[in-house]
Amino acid sequence: MGFFSKDIKNMDDLFVHTLRDIYYAERQILSTLPEMVEKASDPQLKQAFQSHLVETKNQVGRLEKVFRLHRQEPSGVDCPAIDGIIEEADEVAGEVDDNSVLDAALIAAAQAVEHYEISRYGTLKQWALQLGMKDAARLLDQTLQEEKKTDVALTSLAEAAVNLAAAA
Amino acid sequence: MGFFSKDIKNMDDLFVHTLRDIYYAERQILSTLPEMVEKASDPQLKQAFQSHLVETKNQVGRLEKVFRLHRQEPSGVDCPAIDGIIEEADEVAGEVDDNSVLDAALIAAAQAVEHYEISRYGTLKQWALQLGMKDAARLLDQTLQEEKKTDVALTSLAEAAVNLAAAA
Repeated sequence: MGFFSKDIKNMDDLFVHTLRDIYYAERQILSTLPEMVEKASDPQLKQAFQSHLVETKNQVGRLEKVFRLHRQEPSGVDCPAIDGIIEEADEVAGEVDDNSVLDAALIAAAQAVEHYEISRYGTLKQWALQLGMKDAARLLDQTLQEEKKTDVALTSLAEAAVNLAAAA
Repeated sequence: MGFFSKDIKNMDDLFVHTLRDIYYAERQILSTLPEMVEKASDPQLKQAFQSHLVETKNQVGRLEKVFRLHRQEPSGVDCPAIDGIIEEADEVAGEVDDNSVLDAALIAAAQAVEHYEISRYGTLKQWALQLGMKDAARLLDQTLQEEKKTDVALTSLAEAAVNLAAAA
């Protein structure tokens, strides 16, 4: 994108810009997830992050298909949103000592990431439909549904902690 | 939070830290919304942002009640996540010339903000229950439901644009 120029002229430009934004975001998430697997103590949470790592690799592949459907080479663009979400997660995790508190902080951080992705994939799917790109919309919707499922699974893990505390 | 110290010792500390995070975020959103009202062209979108500005003021008041229920003075803590989301929204909006494309970009930005809030209020509500703070959980849930409604309303506005394009 150029300085002092208006480089997004139409919906197609906006779609590609946002596709490049989430492509950068997914790759940042890929490089962050192994650290989250490492930090998690609860075996179910560790397993959830491990599964999501595999899923995220597929999602990156799916995004590359969307780029190709659009006859574009896959490439990223800086995404201050995901950088901020990850920076905040690192800062908070660095302040926590206790293992179960750290697990709670990791679930919260992962849900903030999931919700960022849910908003972006929801938007991209709508725009793909608007641009008449049904195949791209279908691929984007597959990832959207996966992200929603991951968010629900993380909520269940958080609720399990609530029930545990209530029973204590 | 101190340098090189682990200042979050327990769930209560994590709850207060995250409450301060969303308090800062809501106030950043409050200062950004008038600009979004200004930039939006579609009268329904302008109205949606205007209503959300009023709603956000109430949500800030509700957070202040939660602080008081917890016998804490309301105060914020830097939130790189919301700063990143807003920075990205500004960058993209600055690249767009066409009014209807700018409206689409504004809806996408607002939905990224809503989803950040949905994740944080969902987390805070769970933690309030875990800590036995039922009144706080009820207040946090009220805002959570409002944020979800706002997100649905924004999706409807985005879908209207899709239908408009399909009919063209």
